Amino acid sequence: MTKRKPASAILLIHCPDQTGIVAAVTEFIGTHDGNILYLDQHVDLEKKVFFMRIEWDLANFTIPRELIHSEFQQKIGERFNMNFKLHFSDVKLRMAVFVSELPHCLYDILSRWQSDEWDVDIPLIISNHNTLKNTADKFEIPYHTLPVNSKNKSEQEKQQLELLNKNDIDFIVLARYMQILSDDFVSSFRNRIINIHHSFLPAFPGAKPYHSAFERGVKIIGSTSHFVTAELDAGPIIEQDITRISHADSISDLIRKGRDLEKLVLSRAIWKYLQRKILIYDNRTVIFT
Amino acid sequence: MTKRKPASAILLIHCPDQTGIVAAVTEFIGTHDGNILYLDQHVDLEKKVFFMRIEWDLANFTIPRELIHSEFQQKIGERFNMNFKLHFSDVKLRMAVFVSELPHCLYDILSRWQSDEWDVDIPLIISNHNTLKNTADKFEIPYHTLPVNSKNKSEQEKQQLELLNKNDIDFIVLARYMQILSDDFVSSFRNRIINIHHSFLPAFPGAKPYHSAFERGVKIIGSTSHFVTAELDAGPIIEQDITRISHADSISDLIRKGRDLEKLVLSRAIWKYLQRKILIYDNRTVIFT
Amino acid sequence: MTKRKPASAILLIHCPDQTGIVAAVTEFIGTHDGNILYLDQHVDLEKKVFFMRIEWDLANFTIPRELIHSEFQQKIGERFNMNFKLHFSDVKLRMAVFVSELPHCLYDILSRWQSDEWDVDIPLIISNHNTLKNTADKFEIPYHTLPVNSKNKSEQEKQQLELLNKNDIDFIVLARYMQILSDDFVSSFRNRIINIHHSFLPAFPGAKPYHSAFERGVKIIGSTSHFVTAELDAGPIIEQDITRISHADSISDLIRKGRDLEKLVLSRAIWKYLQRKILIYDNRTVIFT
Amino acid sequence: MTKRKPASAILLIHCPDQTGIVAAVTEFIGTHDGNILYLDQHVDLEKKVFFMRIEWDLANFTIPRELIHSEFQQKIGERFNMNFKLHFSDVKLRMAVFVSELPHCLYDILSRWQSDEWDVDIPLIISNHNTLKNTADKFEIPYHTLPVNSKNKSEQEKQQLELLNKNDIDFIVLARYMQILSDDFVSSFRNRIINIHHSFLPAFPGAKPYHSAFERGVKIIGSTSHFVTAELDAGPIIEQDITRISHADSISDLIRKGRDLEKLVLSRAIWKYLQRKILIYDNRTVIFT
Repeated sequence: MTKRKPASAILLIHCPDQTGIVAAVTEFIGTHDGNILYLDQHVDLEKKVFFMRIEWDLANFTIPRELIHSEFQQKIGERFNMNFKLHFSDVKLRMAVFVSELPHCLYDILSRWQSDEWDVDIPLIISNHNTLKNTADKFEIPYHTLPVNSKNKSEQEKQQLELLNKNDIDFIVLARYMQILSDDFVSSFRNRIINIHHSFLPAFPGAKPYHSAFERGVKIIGSTSHFVTAELDAGPIIEQDITRISHADSISDLIRKGRDLEKLVLSRAIWKYLQRKILIYDNRTVIFT
Repeated sequence: MTKRKPASAILLIHCPDQTGIVAAVTEFIGTHDGNILYLDQHVDLEKKVFFMRIEWDLANFTIPRELIHSEFQQKIGERFNMNFKLHFSDVKLRMAVFVSELPHCLYDILSRWQSDEWDVDIPLIISNHNTLKNTADKFEIPYHTLPVNSKNKSEQEKQQLELLNKNDIDFIVLARYMQILSDDFVSSFRNRIINIHHSFLPAFPGAKPYHSAFERGVKIIGSTSHFVTAELDAGPIIEQDITRISHADSISDLIRKGRDLEKLVLSRAIWKYLQRKILIYDNRTVIFT
Repeated sequence: MTKRKPASAILLIHCPDQTGIVAAVTEFIGTHDGNILYLDQHVDLEKKVFFMRIEWDLANFTIPRELIHSEFQQKIGERFNMNFKLHFSDVKLRMAVFVSELPHCLYDILSRWQSDEWDVDIPLIISNHNTLKNTADKFEIPYHTLPVNSKNKSEQEKQQLELLNKNDIDFIVLARYMQILSDDFVSSFRNRIINIHHSFLPAFPGAKPYHSAFERGVKIIGSTSHFVTAELDAGPIIEQDITRISHADSISDLIRKGRDLEKLVLSRAIWKYLQRKILIYDNRTVIFT
Repeated sequence: MTKRKPASAILLIHCPDQTGIVAAVTEFIGTHDGNILYLDQHVDLEKKVFFMRIEWDLANFTIPRELIHSEFQQKIGERFNMNFKLHFSDVKLRMAVFVSELPHCLYDILSRWQSDEWDVDIPLIISNHNTLKNTADKFEIPYHTLPVNSKNKSEQEKQQLELLNKNDIDFIVLARYMQILSDDFVSSFRNRIINIHHSFLPAFPGAKPYHSAFERGVKIIGSTSHFVTAELDAGPIIEQDITRISHADSISDLIRKGRDLEKLVLSRAIWKYLQRKILIYDNRTVIFT
């Protein structure tokens, strides 16, 4: 991780709902001369869980950066039985991209990265095919081809994990990567693997959703970005969007229209992740605005 | 059926795709001094099926109205092995509405009917509850309460069919009618029963889709209007639409937002049906624009 | 105003942005045993203005209802130079509906009211035409016909204001009311008159926006609900939505599709108003989620 | 222009509406053994103009390609007083891209071109800045920097036209090109210059539409692709789309969200142009599906 820009601290919190949380957290920050830049909270009234994202300027904050976590835990976290994560806005995340043969999501990601839309490092691209190496080369990003078949899968995943660790990867984006990851692999990056699935889940999970959508005769198609879990296409949903189709659209029209959706929905999910605006609870996400 | 307005004829056609169909049909109309008001065609290239909707002014048409069907069948239909339906725009369709206890779709339908948005007759409303009788009364439409339970179902459906037949009903709208119709009933009105289901099918078929959508953590909810077939929520889809939701929406928010979708999607389906712009083929619909 | 339901208090606040506001407000509520049900805040970083909506349960709140305003003003409001409004959730608002001759928005409003979608009283409907009296009668709401022309306008507005005052009206909804209100009238109900305009403002203000949209060849049409100000169609926007059109749509198709938009957009604006989720500042709105 | 793929012929027709057009055109094609692949027609009932796009397979067509235009003109065009254009699907169009300093639309265009989403040649990119030369280099497309100021404008446009002519350019895409083209330049490529404007026109024409949208407090922002005419942002609209925003979005959020809209809307317009599915009439477009 590299550092830059005037820094702010970000807390993502969830805990049992109870009175006094907001007052306690905001007072903690205010007392130490932190200026709140963002505050959003949500209460799940059914499950009685409190969720919060709060961000404050570190410029005049009187607690040194390295002590914030322990101070907060001691003064506030323990009292409210909080589950919280502390981030710093000047820490650039490191993202690995997994692809197969379809270029559209990869191009979209690399264009945004190259144009500084996103404040992220992309140290490597991993693929089970050689097809998109040229694309990676254009953007001068190391591209590792690790073909996967039924026999070598666990061996290749070991190699992938080594590459990811060696490159200090924070999270993985599956940009139309056409391989199912093993449970072991997934648990090594629990809640840190973002997939794009080309249907409005839970409709049409698994393979060939555009063909199924055509067959069923739906009037809208969709895309879903979600965190990968052990169960296929069943992880917490981050973002979805749809587009209208008609009887006049062939399967190849669906694929064409769907491509644009996939790019859009995946990139919005990555944006939210980079902003630390996603909280996962009970296989659902809280997406702060 | 009652009659009104300057009349046009409407043909809905499907047949094996082959050259010369459009030329033959348009020439048939032109030769008999019919002025084409609307022409839309679609070819399913995979299944090699041709679909067409054509409408023409009857003012100067030289074939008498009652002979058009047989003339067309003889000259064109047989030659191209056509499956076709002939409608006349001045024939007002007769619609029965089935409801249970939720008023929003019923109000929406009756308001549109009363405001002459739709050129349709509504001779009766059938319900398994007495709840919405007051609403029907406001609009002076006969309301028949036929409570349904596991024992009396086939008896009540018999009564319903009698009422429908006695009232010359052309098609049925299930405006959040919370009963599953028997296969027998459905086949009596094959492709003439329009349902509104409160999810983006094929996601969340069956009961309580808003609860399931909440549980799954989707970011969009939808509504689907479709023709009723023997298999539950699996008939040809006419129209779908969606609205965005977030983690901040409770189940009751989903129900509230969904209500507006249901009204909109159902009313669009009814509109298309009244315009004779729906063609059904292989459990899918062609919806002409 | 009538009263009902377990009560909560709602504060809508804006003030110059500064540190400690959230902590102070939440502590004020917590100290007096109020349980926060909702908290959303927004900071306009450019104008340095802080906005907040906070709602709390009054069940165990130790300050009596009639003293909350003055206590809050004294302890918090003055300190932060706040502009705030206090509402109680159990106070049912009283809404007047103004219409002309188009029934769709009126039907939509009355259906929602009758179905208890909205917790509101509608003591009267005012119109410059007699056309929709029958509709009002169906729902048993007093309907006052006050025809307006260039000569009698100020006289009729005086009558309208008398009716509104006599009925303790809190806010007015112009449900396609085709008259421009005088500045005097508007200032009597400043920020309390909601209009629906049938275009995506600022495009196509004034008369006949569907005709202008058709003429310009746009591919989307819209609707806008906004508060009425002295300048025509230029007040703070509450809600907008759009629908796609194509070259195949005639002006009457635009009017038909637009009707559904108008109903939807106006009803969403009314819903937000009833929830006390709208804050107006500098001719723009903050709409809390 | 280069050639490839099994060829079809495409006719884009408009003419005064009259009976017998469709029959005549389809018979012309059928008589010469052409198999119709696509037929869509539209009648502007107000202006009494007939529009049609028809496409047929040339495989067995008995009129040689180079004679089709004159044969059609003689047999059909003259009779119906048609204004028509004949295209061949195997003729690859040649597109010039004009950019300034914003990379997102350029990346999107080049990615689609490189991935063979679009069947088009891009012989050159022209810019008034050097900023995006690196991007062009990645994709190995010649990049010409022609800085424009108030003095050298007509000289630079002359140079641009020379480059365009030397490269046999069929149409121009302004991918956020921040210069107003002279009337002379525009008339050299009449109805062949596609612009993307970052608002839902006719709202917010001209400079800084996101700032104006923010200022006005709209709840949706849009993008519009249109053909360039002498009047700024007033040419025939090809495609529009929108996205929702809220009070929480700053101007930079609008710019960020708008970028994705611009890419999407511009690319859809280019797609339609490449499919020869756009017909222009009276400053409006007919966009065939």
